[in-house]
Amino acid sequence: MKIAVLGGDGFVGWPTTLHLSDAGHEVHIIDNLSRRWIDTELGVQSLTPMDSIQERCRIWHELTGKRIHFHLLDLAKEHERLKSWLAEHRPDAVIHFAEQRAAPYSMKTDRHKTYTVDNNISATHNLLAALVETGIDAHLVHLGTMGVYGYSSVGAPIPEGYLDIEIDTPEGKKEQEILYPTRPGSVYHMTKSLDQIMFQFYAQNDGLRITDLHQGIVWGTHTEQTRRHEQLINRFDYDGDYGTVLNRFLIQAAIDYPLTVHGTGGQTRAFIHIQDSVRCIELALGDAPKRGDRVRIFNQMTETHRVRDLAELIGRLTGSRVAYVPNPRKEAAENDLVVRNEQFLALGLEPTTLEEGLLEEVVEVAKRYAHRIDRSRVPALSAWTRDIAQTLDRDPEGKSIRSIS
Amino acid sequence: MKIAVLGGDGFVGWPTTLHLSDAGHEVHIIDNLSRRWIDTELGVQSLTPMDSIQERCRIWHELTGKRIHFHLLDLAKEHERLKSWLAEHRPDAVIHFAEQRAAPYSMKTDRHKTYTVDNNISATHNLLAALVETGIDAHLVHLGTMGVYGYSSVGAPIPEGYLDIEIDTPEGKKEQEILYPTRPGSVYHMTKSLDQIMFQFYAQNDGLRITDLHQGIVWGTHTEQTRRHEQLINRFDYDGDYGTVLNRFLIQAAIDYPLTVHGTGGQTRAFIHIQDSVRCIELALGDAPKRGDRVRIFNQMTETHRVRDLAELIGRLTGSRVAYVPNPRKEAAENDLVVRNEQFLALGLEPTTLEEGLLEEVVEVAKRYAHRIDRSRVPALSAWTRDIAQTLDRDPEGKSIRSIS
Ligand SMILES: NC(=O)c1ccc[n+]([C@@H]2O[C@H](COP(=O)([O-])OP(=O)(O)OC[C@H]3O[C@@H](n4cnc5c(N)ncnc54)[C@H](O)[C@@H]3O)[C@@H](O)[C@H]2O)c1
Ligand SMILES: NC(=O)c1ccc[n+]([C@@H]2O[C@H](COP(=O)([O-])OP(=O)(O)OC[C@H]3O[C@@H](n4cnc5c(N)ncnc54)[C@H](O)[C@@H]3O)[C@@H](O)[C@H]2O)c1
Repeated sequence: MKIAVLGGDGFVGWPTTLHLSDAGHEVHIIDNLSRRWIDTELGVQSLTPMDSIQERCRIWHELTGKRIHFHLLDLAKEHERLKSWLAEHRPDAVIHFAEQRAAPYSMKTDRHKTYTVDNNISATHNLLAALVETGIDAHLVHLGTMGVYGYSSVGAPIPEGYLDIEIDTPEGKKEQEILYPTRPGSVYHMTKSLDQIMFQFYAQNDGLRITDLHQGIVWGTHTEQTRRHEQLINRFDYDGDYGTVLNRFLIQAAIDYPLTVHGTGGQTRAFIHIQDSVRCIELALGDAPKRGDRVRIFNQMTETHRVRDLAELIGRLTGSRVAYVPNPRKEAAENDLVVRNEQFLALGLEPTTLEEGLLEEVVEVAKRYAHRIDRSRVPALSAWTRDIAQTLDRDPEGKSIRSIS
Repeated sequence: MKIAVLGGDGFVGWPTTLHLSDAGHEVHIIDNLSRRWIDTELGVQSLTPMDSIQERCRIWHELTGKRIHFHLLDLAKEHERLKSWLAEHRPDAVIHFAEQRAAPYSMKTDRHKTYTVDNNISATHNLLAALVETGIDAHLVHLGTMGVYGYSSVGAPIPEGYLDIEIDTPEGKKEQEILYPTRPGSVYHMTKSLDQIMFQFYAQNDGLRITDLHQGIVWGTHTEQTRRHEQLINRFDYDGDYGTVLNRFLIQAAIDYPLTVHGTGGQTRAFIHIQDSVRCIELALGDAPKRGDRVRIFNQMTETHRVRDLAELIGRLTGSRVAYVPNPRKEAAENDLVVRNEQFLALGLEPTTLEEGLLEEVVEVAKRYAHRIDRSRVPALSAWTRDIAQTLDRDPEGKSIRSIS
């Protein structure tokens, strides 16, 4: 297959690109490298030393003889170039990772909020409109998030995308299928909730074939392919904006920083290992919907955990302290989360569990690159509202820690 | 009250501005005049001769001694200027009309699709982020549309915004309140569906006080204030993109053009007279939600009619023929529509019915300005898909008419 990977320079996009190239597909990365610019803006860098995308592609070629093509293009701002690119290359599938994906970054200031909305919505919509305009019947696989549902549901298992509801009509109750209602908790999550409606529209109006993967929090670093050469290593974000909770705990443990749990740590979240994420995308690619089908939605996650349990687990594994600090987010203090993921299991996914994979991460990644960590970048400081901002403290190593276990 | 009317140069915005100024409020129009530019792009013009916004404001002042302030500002592109404006003027209420609002225009080409999404989403989101950033606790009243729900529901009455559903949980069925599910049928309608989710988020996260008016199709031209001077007259769109169905029938009747009904005309739509629309907005303004309340949603409409019944009605009134032409839209051929609107009735709205108002429109507007009509602009030619485009005909006066009654 000829596959376009939009956002292929990112944390999930890069290992996906390698995996698909390895499997024999012709892979084209389209990326505007905005994520690297944001590192520069924030003054942070990947824990793992990361080469330029051009260099990474060169090394992959040297190692395997396979070419990965890189195209610098801004999906949100270059609609005409995107169209020309599609018309020229006519991909069989398009995998769309190319969005601003950090909730804390999306909540920093109004500039970050508007950037996130303008970038993500225009990127997704430009792509949809361009596929229709060029008449290319590619399978579009998009990375969404479990977070669109918010975390304050009534405790029912979250189905894979759809819900049948009963509506009272003059002729009695009737069933209707709806998108499972979303309740996004940040501007970032909100953009994914908007994406979903755009997908529904374009599938219905234009027969676009779309798969939307509602992904859990991705953890881990290596995949089979990134392991093959030091310079193929994946990025690993640990800062307060882009670092996801588990990865942050890992590096906190590595540098003997307290494991900072927000609020009571009662938030339950869904997780998936990067290797599984990559496999799921391949499975989804192989199982495309037909023209006229509704959007196919998968829950792409393998485990759920309460944040404080994770912290305690890593604490036990590494001897680190757990520190409870004020929560910068506006969210329920405690929530349950049950997620259905039968579809991927039925397609043959065999999950890497936290229990198997964690220790490797601690040793091979966190400890190995610990000298590159900037401690001052570890606290999560983007507050969801002005009132919350006042409760935060710049120094979770010090006085804002409420209790330590 | 100090009120900002965003999009105050438009079809609903202008009479609203006059109405509120007349009632003693300090009114500021913010508009980028994009609607006038679109007239230029399409080579169409309002049936009624419309002065510049500056001239209209001058005449209102001459007539009443009251000032309407006009500010040229693009909500979608000038976030910083918007913030400064808000911080300087600190309005008590903001009425948001400023979006590209024609479904056919939004479906013309990919350029029109991306313009509509980028303009409407950025305009709405910039406003929300700016209100949060400036800390202004204004009541935000937005004009949404009944069209977000699509027109293929199971026949249940459409409630005012929310629906209680039952969800199966391990502990039995539980009730949950959700936004009434949307199913937008055009890119334009889709943007309003996205707006709704942004409102929900900002009401929940930041306590913004928001009212969303899900409006039916507006018909009619005059309000009490626009009648006071010829140069205060409201715009009246009759072209295939911006003309709404009833207004189009009226001018077709005036120039002895067949009343063009799309498909079987079995589509049922909700309607409201411009005078009632303006009153509803005033009623909504007077009934603001409190900080922390959910978004208040009203269905702003007074009657529903099947399109072919409307055509037949106007045909009887004027002696015009009704012509059934291929439908450029992708939609169900026939649908029922029952809409709840108790909230506005409870607030005292006394609807102007079609039966009372129609004849005046025919005589005072359509016939009076009939000499300004460009017949070639009457057909609706924006097709929802490429396949549909091929079924359309450039000349509904001639061969594409399937049957005439
Ligand atoms: N990482 C996770 O835990 C996680 C969890 C759930 C969902 N997701 C989703 O998966 C996708 C990939 O996540 P990630 O962690 O790899 O993010 P990332 O930020 O590492 O990668 C995103 C890539 O997209 C590019 N990009 C952004 N905007 C672009 C534009 N307008 N034009 C072209 N390229 C653009 C960036 O430069 C970056 O390389 C995202 O859509 C994200 O929302 C990620
Ligand atoms: N007319 C109807 O039948 C109808 C029905 C339902 C809902 N609505 C909604 O009511 C609102 C007003 O409708 P209308 O018929 O008056 O439309 P209109 O096009 O006549 O007016 C919209 C105004 O907003 C301005 N505008 C657009 N984008 C802007 C931007 N980025 N910055 C500043 N100004 C901008 C335009 O110049 C125009 O003056 C719209 O949001 C529409 O969706 C209208």
